Amino acid sequence: MFNFDFYNPTHIVFGKDRLAELDTLVPKEAKVLITYGGGSAVRSGLIDRVTTALGNRKVEQFGGIEPNPSLETCERAVAFIKENGVDFVLAVGGGSVVDATKLIVMGATYDGPVIEVMKAGVPEVPVEMVPNPLPFGTVMTLPATGSEMNNGAVITYGDGKFPVFSSLVFPKFSMLDPTLTFTLPEKQVKNGVIDTFVHTTEQYLTYPVEGRIQDRFSEGILKTMIEIGKETVENPENYDIRANHVWASTLALNGLIGAGVPQDWATHLIGHELTAAYHLDHGITLAIVLPALLEVKKADKLEKLAQYATRVWHITEGTPEEKADKAIVKTREFFESLGVSTHLKDYGLGTEAIDKIVKQLENHGMVKLGEKRDITLEVTREILTRAL
Amino acid sequence: MFNFDFYNPTHIVFGKDRLAELDTLVPKEAKVLITYGGGSAVRSGLIDRVTTALGNRKVEQFGGIEPNPSLETCERAVAFIKENGVDFVLAVGGGSVVDATKLIVMGATYDGPVIEVMKAGVPEVPVEMVPNPLPFGTVMTLPATGSEMNNGAVITYGDGKFPVFSSLVFPKFSMLDPTLTFTLPEKQVKNGVIDTFVHTTEQYLTYPVEGRIQDRFSEGILKTMIEIGKETVENPENYDIRANHVWASTLALNGLIGAGVPQDWATHLIGHELTAAYHLDHGITLAIVLPALLEVKKADKLEKLAQYATRVWHITEGTPEEKADKAIVKTREFFESLGVSTHLKDYGLGTEAIDKIVKQLENHGMVKLGEKRDITLEVTREILTRAL
Repeated sequence: MFNFDFYNPTHIVFGKDRLAELDTLVPKEAKVLITYGGGSAVRSGLIDRVTTALGNRKVEQFGGIEPNPSLETCERAVAFIKENGVDFVLAVGGGSVVDATKLIVMGATYDGPVIEVMKAGVPEVPVEMVPNPLPFGTVMTLPATGSEMNNGAVITYGDGKFPVFSSLVFPKFSMLDPTLTFTLPEKQVKNGVIDTFVHTTEQYLTYPVEGRIQDRFSEGILKTMIEIGKETVENPENYDIRANHVWASTLALNGLIGAGVPQDWATHLIGHELTAAYHLDHGITLAIVLPALLEVKKADKLEKLAQYATRVWHITEGTPEEKADKAIVKTREFFESLGVSTHLKDYGLGTEAIDKIVKQLENHGMVKLGEKRDITLEVTREILTRAL
Repeated sequence: MFNFDFYNPTHIVFGKDRLAELDTLVPKEAKVLITYGGGSAVRSGLIDRVTTALGNRKVEQFGGIEPNPSLETCERAVAFIKENGVDFVLAVGGGSVVDATKLIVMGATYDGPVIEVMKAGVPEVPVEMVPNPLPFGTVMTLPATGSEMNNGAVITYGDGKFPVFSSLVFPKFSMLDPTLTFTLPEKQVKNGVIDTFVHTTEQYLTYPVEGRIQDRFSEGILKTMIEIGKETVENPENYDIRANHVWASTLALNGLIGAGVPQDWATHLIGHELTAAYHLDHGITLAIVLPALLEVKKADKLEKLAQYATRVWHITEGTPEEKADKAIVKTREFFESLGVSTHLKDYGLGTEAIDKIVKQLENHGMVKLGEKRDITLEVTREILTRAL
């Protein structure tokens, strides 16, 4: 097991009928800015209910945060805060709203352009650069990204995606009420299932380092998502199924399963370029890239793939190679069973897309990906060819 | 799944060779009190190494915290702090030292007798009673209790054990270096394995509530402890095995696996009385009580026992009752395989002990235990009779 640090101070408030508790979770005297995305949070009445729960507090709103939130949107929110004076931000929505809010709360207390904070985001925004981001909480409506219980964000700028981390932007609290996710469009639920699944494989399908507990926890999330994936898509109002989906999504990316073990993330980084280039949903890009990546990297990931086959898919027969092959097929079938195609051609993309993505990765300096930093541009080309 | 809150802000610093980082973890200007237990931490040189890592800080020591730490010991430490002025406490040892330290840091800022804080400990010490406990961190030498990453303590006073909770006594950090546990007496390692195992079963072997993720995580800890239990006892310097033992111990009682699911704790509460009456090690009392309790409560716990049989022990044949029976036998055999007897008679105790323990439970108001509050004194008598 590798040495590691684990720190996660977000207070999770999980379950039904808890919106009224916002009154005790948000500081009493705070002037609050509610950040949100499209109009659905307004139309569903959620923004009104949140505002009611905040009682006599002065409340402002900033809507229109888009999927794959842009730097420009964050800049507008920061300008609004600097003009109006806000003490606490409450993000209401999914991962995009929460990601944007993380950059917004840093930008709001930074005496300079927001782009400087964004560009300082890896490995993390220096504490001395932004020592006092505004505090914020979240009310989640989409189980997928895990942003509600971590300190990372992904911001879109031009044709690039910029990860931003800071030890100071964990949400103070995240309210996870599964019923608030019941009205999500089916497409977003599918994407959420795949995102949770692939967050887990990024931290699990690498090479063994005797992280027995981490492996068991990852396998637990994967098995649960396989059990409930179809059901949470087809019966969105099955509370218990959705509750497990929500909690799995949070635990897949709150730092726990990745503590002390190698991490890959190549599927995400290649997927990000597909989203930037062709506006494919994030979940779809992961479903396209992961099976192809596992096929190409089978030899390097063999021990973990065979373990995955046995423990997650109950494949007990065959050589490690045969088990790995079967597990990769099962993974692809799982995504397809949700109605998400795993081939580029099904999204109207051919070999020209490969050239474009490889070029973008080169432009963005993403030339050595994966847990061993051996996914070069040539390997990526092979992965994308497999994904055609 | 039940509604739940999960909040755990302790910073885990896990791995080898990290003692020097105490210099960045402890506030620069702090006057530090090191709390510890018996002389082994001194003899091994650990206290010296910790003091060295603290550099130029003024450091005081308070040793002699006993297993099952007493109120009186905590009172002496509080008096010392009030007299000498201390800004930060660093607990070096196992769960007993950390438990005592939690009451000490509260007592040190409470303007009244420490016993009042202890007696206010359930469900938790009111924040307005002790709003500013001293901050503290831990350097763990014993993987067992989970106290390094939770906000609870158990304090002994007279013939009773008093749980004490406060949302303000999570350690600021806990340094978990598996190598610091290599020199533990074998008996303590065995006890630690059993303690970790039974912490998990207390939160798992109840009744199903669709806590799929929680179940998978609990099963992951149990399977890991079964895999490594004998090895961590017999080959204490196998780093990876011990690292998994340490991390499993922490995760078994940091609030995660119990969030949103029913909890039992009868084994612990009955076990505490055995320790108070006969000075049996905590781990031994759990090994005595758990199998007997599972036998007596088999019908109520049947669904989870059958799941435990299948998923943890790979028992796939038979009726649920037969699976449950086999799993209980396996559990008993596991404890015995560590060299820990699971019968009262092997510790020189007979029926007279049953009367005494039942009387003690009555005196302490422990008359309805378990996840359904249906373990009455009569049921406890039956459990202890099975444990003879």
